[in-house]
Amino acid sequence: MNIQLLMTGNELMSGDIIDSNSSMIADHLQPSGITVSRKVTVGDNLKLLVNEIQTMSQSADLLLVNGGLGPTLDDMTAEALALATGTELVENPIALEHLTLWCEKRGSQLNQANLKQTILPEGCEIIPNPRGTAVGFQMSLNDCLVVCTPGVPNELREMLKQTIIPALSGKTDPAEAGVRERFHLFGIGESRLQQMITDQIPDWPDALELGFRAGAPTLEVKVQSKRRDAGLHAHYLEKLLTVFRDSITSEGSESQAQALVTLLSSQNKTLTIAESCTGGLIASMITSAAGASAIFEAGYITYSNQQKTRMLGVSEQTLAQHGAVSEYTVREMAQGALQESGADYVIAISGIAGPEGGSDDKPVGTVWLAWGDSSSIETARLYLPYPRKLFQTMAAGAGLDLIRRKASGLSTQPDYLTERVHPDWNKPSD
Amino acid sequence: MNIQLLMTGNELMSGDIIDSNSSMIADHLQPSGITVSRKVTVGDNLKLLVNEIQTMSQSADLLLVNGGLGPTLDDMTAEALALATGTELVENPIALEHLTLWCEKRGSQLNQANLKQTILPEGCEIIPNPRGTAVGFQMSLNDCLVVCTPGVPNELREMLKQTIIPALSGKTDPAEAGVRERFHLFGIGESRLQQMITDQIPDWPDALELGFRAGAPTLEVKVQSKRRDAGLHAHYLEKLLTVFRDSITSEGSESQAQALVTLLSSQNKTLTIAESCTGGLIASMITSAAGASAIFEAGYITYSNQQKTRMLGVSEQTLAQHGAVSEYTVREMAQGALQESGADYVIAISGIAGPEGGSDDKPVGTVWLAWGDSSSIETARLYLPYPRKLFQTMAAGAGLDLIRRKASGLSTQPDYLTERVHPDWNKPSD
Repeated sequence: MNIQLLMTGNELMSGDIIDSNSSMIADHLQPSGITVSRKVTVGDNLKLLVNEIQTMSQSADLLLVNGGLGPTLDDMTAEALALATGTELVENPIALEHLTLWCEKRGSQLNQANLKQTILPEGCEIIPNPRGTAVGFQMSLNDCLVVCTPGVPNELREMLKQTIIPALSGKTDPAEAGVRERFHLFGIGESRLQQMITDQIPDWPDALELGFRAGAPTLEVKVQSKRRDAGLHAHYLEKLLTVFRDSITSEGSESQAQALVTLLSSQNKTLTIAESCTGGLIASMITSAAGASAIFEAGYITYSNQQKTRMLGVSEQTLAQHGAVSEYTVREMAQGALQESGADYVIAISGIAGPEGGSDDKPVGTVWLAWGDSSSIETARLYLPYPRKLFQTMAAGAGLDLIRRKASGLSTQPDYLTERVHPDWNKPSD
Repeated sequence: MNIQLLMTGNELMSGDIIDSNSSMIADHLQPSGITVSRKVTVGDNLKLLVNEIQTMSQSADLLLVNGGLGPTLDDMTAEALALATGTELVENPIALEHLTLWCEKRGSQLNQANLKQTILPEGCEIIPNPRGTAVGFQMSLNDCLVVCTPGVPNELREMLKQTIIPALSGKTDPAEAGVRERFHLFGIGESRLQQMITDQIPDWPDALELGFRAGAPTLEVKVQSKRRDAGLHAHYLEKLLTVFRDSITSEGSESQAQALVTLLSSQNKTLTIAESCTGGLIASMITSAAGASAIFEAGYITYSNQQKTRMLGVSEQTLAQHGAVSEYTVREMAQGALQESGADYVIAISGIAGPEGGSDDKPVGTVWLAWGDSSSIETARLYLPYPRKLFQTMAAGAGLDLIRRKASGLSTQPDYLTERVHPDWNKPSD
């Protein structure tokens, strides 16, 4: 089955946004064993759109068009499909009903701009959109099914899940999809991990595809094989896990924070967080996970020295003698937060996010972490010489990872605590 | 000048990585007034590559090929260009010299895999790569210059800056880059704004391109014109600003939080934040901005009722009588945070992020905000029926916007406080 994508939008051509939708589409097709063979991206230009729809439909079995369904004048996918297929644009009753119900439910008025979203090529089939005003639609051209979808990511995702992918079943062979596992690791860079695998599993088979994608703060590792190699897959997966098992923060589509919330919930433990340089980011990651209230009650953002003393009882002498970015300060922050909150576990963090505030002794990128429980608090200094936001993200990731290791009872010390610098943590894949 | 991109690589088709290179290319071309007209993406398939190079070179003046220059078997751009142009693959002396020097400098051995990177189409011109082993190369085909570049982002960036973009000067007209303005608005959706502009500026000229991109929490509006229309641009920009001036949170590449930090800094004012449902997100947005320490000292994340009382002095009676998500509770949170922190301004927030915890009276998506200073605290209830993370982001955006309005002395009430629901706030552009 030949599937092609046509992505539309000036913002995709101007560099204003990065196209994450085509990656999402590929991810949703993958379990059906389908890969996209070709993708074309053009701006909001009616002539180009019509031309691409006509040309691509000649070689594709399924042409997925994404974007250009919005209410504004630069949204022209419906018109392009009408011109390409030689049909009229007419008011579609299903689209109108959807829009009317949508507005009624929200107590808002139907406006002229929205009504544009109901004017579609005559005879097209509607694809429901449970998340937005713009329905999708499809029709055949040159023996190719042309499926038009909205550019809004969460709307596209629902349409893929609920309608488009299910409609493909029967036309595809799930056996071709093979076996795929995804792991998210903290504290190992891509090139180091590749070297470890080459050294420790020299007979890694070509039939198993190993992919890396460096995000922040975690590195994603993907192992993919065809089903006929299921035995091989299991065998080498086991070997692979011996290389990095302790560094796994979460699996599949689960986030690092969500996995930690699940882990602590299962132990009936609670966590408190005292943040200086990350300014609420760690707490925000935790509370973005559903169910966070079971493990999290209080967070202290003590951005100034005075507030470290006032909110957490860090002694003024400690601050004067060792500074805010020091082992002593983060230890006292951790102790204060445990005492104030009554939580079981604590993460405390203080560092120099930059761009200002560094010194020879404590350059920008220096961070002290304290973590543990009332019986034992550990501390560590890391050096994360990255731009401000990435520094904060990596430091927050370290905090979450250290509590995961503590709560999991891991006795091994992660490499990232014993190295001075971590140059390739965030080297994105080529 | 017609510029097209050909992006290659299985990882781009499989969804494993998101293509950020084409956005980078567009950004580098923009100051020269050049936009990419069309982009095609294919996997590592020799036949498809040859076919695309031949076809695209017929309509483009410049074809930028990205990816497939690496040392492994699935890197086949050189071979594809040789086949497309009907030339032989030969060892290129400049490429060999580069690679030899590269390895010498690093004390590493030239290996067979690397040597593949010196076998290039006969007669091609070399583009230096100061950051990696693979040189770029270019040659003409069908009156189109075909330029092949590596997929590694930092190598591509250097080549663009040092060689490719400078070579275009003289062939392009920077005046074509025109005038571009970007505004970020909070609390107006794309379709509503389009309607307002249509109603209030019915003579909006075609020569001015108006683009929308809904992010979360802000909507970006872009106005683009050619330089020859500078007078027109200024005239209509002024009209446009009368439509949405009060809703502008920031301009250009500045974030909402960064603009607020700059505003409060200029007034020597400080801000404190008391968060329940956003769990540290507002503080995290503020502290992701450089210079945040000048305006922010303390944040209180009171995720449980008990901690609202303990950290901020919210009365147990208020919580029992009105609940945690109520006007009374957020007002007491705000008062407590002002008192504890000594800050000038405060944002307090409590809501139901879901997916659990809603009721008929207070459904998931309900949020109460309090904001102000020691002389006056205002409150408002919003209803943001979105998935958890988006709910948090939009609620945080509202908090930042309300303090901006207060600190700016805006007397108008934003529409989003008087509407019951905000159906299209986060409708990203198609």
